[in-house]
Amino acid sequence: MNQADLRGFFAEKSTLNMDDYIVLEYYFECAANPEQAAAHLCQEQSTAQWKRVDVDEDLRGRFGAKVIDLVVERMLDQPTYPFLSHSNDKAYSCKVKIAHPHGNFGAKIPNLLTAVLGEGTFYSPGISAIKLLDIEFPESYLGNFQGPKFGIAGLREMLGVYDRPIMIGVIKPNLGLAPEPFAELARQAWLGGLDIAKDDEMLCDVEWSRLTERAERLGAARLECERLTGEKKIYLANITDEVDRLIELHDIAVARGANAVMVNGMTTGLSAVRMLRKHTQVPLFAHFDFIAPFTRMLYFGVHSRVMTKLQRMVGFDSIILPGFGDRMKTSDSDVLLDVQECLKPLGHLKPVLPVPAGSQWAGSIPQLYEKLHSVDFGIVPGRAVFEHPMGPQAGAASLRQSWEATVRGLTLFDYARDHAELLAAIKEGH
Amino acid sequence: MNQADLRGFFAEKSTLNMDDYIVLEYYFECAANPEQAAAHLCQEQSTAQWKRVDVDEDLRGRFGAKVIDLVVERMLDQPTYPFLSHSNDKAYSCKVKIAHPHGNFGAKIPNLLTAVLGEGTFYSPGISAIKLLDIEFPESYLGNFQGPKFGIAGLREMLGVYDRPIMIGVIKPNLGLAPEPFAELARQAWLGGLDIAKDDEMLCDVEWSRLTERAERLGAARLECERLTGEKKIYLANITDEVDRLIELHDIAVARGANAVMVNGMTTGLSAVRMLRKHTQVPLFAHFDFIAPFTRMLYFGVHSRVMTKLQRMVGFDSIILPGFGDRMKTSDSDVLLDVQECLKPLGHLKPVLPVPAGSQWAGSIPQLYEKLHSVDFGIVPGRAVFEHPMGPQAGAASLRQSWEATVRGLTLFDYARDHAELLAAIKEGH
Repeated sequence: MNQADLRGFFAEKSTLNMDDYIVLEYYFECAANPEQAAAHLCQEQSTAQWKRVDVDEDLRGRFGAKVIDLVVERMLDQPTYPFLSHSNDKAYSCKVKIAHPHGNFGAKIPNLLTAVLGEGTFYSPGISAIKLLDIEFPESYLGNFQGPKFGIAGLREMLGVYDRPIMIGVIKPNLGLAPEPFAELARQAWLGGLDIAKDDEMLCDVEWSRLTERAERLGAARLECERLTGEKKIYLANITDEVDRLIELHDIAVARGANAVMVNGMTTGLSAVRMLRKHTQVPLFAHFDFIAPFTRMLYFGVHSRVMTKLQRMVGFDSIILPGFGDRMKTSDSDVLLDVQECLKPLGHLKPVLPVPAGSQWAGSIPQLYEKLHSVDFGIVPGRAVFEHPMGPQAGAASLRQSWEATVRGLTLFDYARDHAELLAAIKEGH
Repeated sequence: MNQADLRGFFAEKSTLNMDDYIVLEYYFECAANPEQAAAHLCQEQSTAQWKRVDVDEDLRGRFGAKVIDLVVERMLDQPTYPFLSHSNDKAYSCKVKIAHPHGNFGAKIPNLLTAVLGEGTFYSPGISAIKLLDIEFPESYLGNFQGPKFGIAGLREMLGVYDRPIMIGVIKPNLGLAPEPFAELARQAWLGGLDIAKDDEMLCDVEWSRLTERAERLGAARLECERLTGEKKIYLANITDEVDRLIELHDIAVARGANAVMVNGMTTGLSAVRMLRKHTQVPLFAHFDFIAPFTRMLYFGVHSRVMTKLQRMVGFDSIILPGFGDRMKTSDSDVLLDVQECLKPLGHLKPVLPVPAGSQWAGSIPQLYEKLHSVDFGIVPGRAVFEHPMGPQAGAASLRQSWEATVRGLTLFDYARDHAELLAAIKEGH
């Protein structure tokens, strides 16, 4: 690309009407000339060819993506992923901000993903490592998205719980139980203090546990537990399935007694979730299956915060996301960024309940509270409730006891002295 | 996990009814005890907890994933991705084959992805790097999928072209032209010998180029070119959009004159494509946006061949995939594996036309023919046709001339002596 062509892909932000642009922040590495690499990135993402042969025109003004900021951070001895650049030579590591005209594709999730994470991004000449770190959307663009129907406030109102984290339990054994014994496990856990009993992300509408019967059994158990405890409860049914069954399964689940539904958003597609949002009568919960392969590399793919933001935009009310701890292979700072994406101002879109997940138990509650400085989160253990040595009712009780200890400023050990369920959980180590 | 629990996640393949299982092949790295790591992988993917407290049961027989083969390949001085294991110690690199009972989730794309690329895969204890290398499906499972409606044979019949590669061109400038001048470019390229003129993957149904008008203009131009050339032509309209508009846009495009449609499958969701397949009247083409982030790492994510296989199962008739050449960051052997997935026997599913893409021109044709040993492929240049110095008609002609040279056993240089379009392409270098 010659210098004149290159300049056509650079702009001063102050000269642009930023209502017309989304702003993309990428990390990238290149072997030579970062300005060329950044210009190519804009070209490949937008007006790959900006004029017809023999016509005097330049389509880049309205349709071209434009570099508005480029910082060369340092020189690396070799690229992070040499097999992507076919070179072991030194590489520049850079951060770029690109103003991308959203009129090129509109307020559509698949076309947005194509624009910012498509061929133009990952196969741009001269660039090896590349990761989309963030997207800023103007209010005019966000206005096209409904976002959460309920959000945190709506969920809290349903449960009548305003001053503490939400206690969620993944019913286990997750696979293989018929609806009746499965519902019995949920019943015990609800009686023990669980707010939300949920299907595992692997459990769907299958021949040995039809959603029709499962929702009916769990729905009946839920109402019984609400009567017995005087607390509101939620059965969160996993309706993840083929796109053209989502609305049907939502209707089945809700008619039979589920009062929230879960969709594995990355495997079903975020666009399908947006479709469901237009129809839903109950809160939508997201599970994070398949997010790891494109977010876990340090310098390639997309930052999970972008996916969290998109999940909020398409209408999830709560996002179960990879949480703290070694097992989840996610740095604390990344988890915190994801949690912030759930909560921070985003146009007219309601905040959503973050549920940082992974190998949790009663002991996770004070840790989460300390890290998040907020009661606006959910905790989602599975085995810690349903494999508790005293049974699921005790497992659920151990969670509530952990929160009681936390608000009283007591250690779990102290509080466990006269709370057998918590003590048993501590002895079990989960 | 104790030794008895571990053995519950191992099985001799000969003892299983393999009709009930899909077979997953993973590469993984672990710091200690590969058998433990493989057993955990099965546990997390399936029966995370296989019995209720105080009930004597074991759900693993029917519902547990089972290791049927485990090979420790070598000891690495350190893990490939130390940040995933929080360790720089030595690591075992392993390959494992897992028989996973498909009755756990059924013949559903989102639930299949959850099972094989979900939380259970990427957050399994003790495992750092992990990549899904392949899936084998039994016929009983494949029988639930329609697969391609047309396939290679159907596409060839539409075009009346049986003995050569299919010449596809991405109309450029890809963004910014109104439907009328856009159609004029396609018209020129069809007259020059192009079989299929297509929308860029970035071009969708937008205010400045409504699909209604675009399909009408291109449809009319297509019919005119068929009359003028005596050849059949295809206008491939990109209908990528929100899931709940796919069928509407298919109907609009086809009614107005498109005779094939493209969907960016990864950004729209493969399940949505399967929905469209039930409805489509025309061949479906796949574009590969967003595949790179989860397939390009050597030891993490999923091999692109798996995604190619799934795209065939959901019903694409042709798959545009990352092709040969440095820019595409894909090894030749990986491209060949993807191409084979399009062509090889797969239950009752028709073969699909592979289109290995990326910076192509007339000179790419003999190279592709040599690498693939077959005429069953498509070539999909953009600028080489539409930025050809003599215009799109000449650009398209240069492709046909390149194929003529190839079948005659001539070098392009020789054939270019009395073929000005090819000569100009060679001088341009693309």
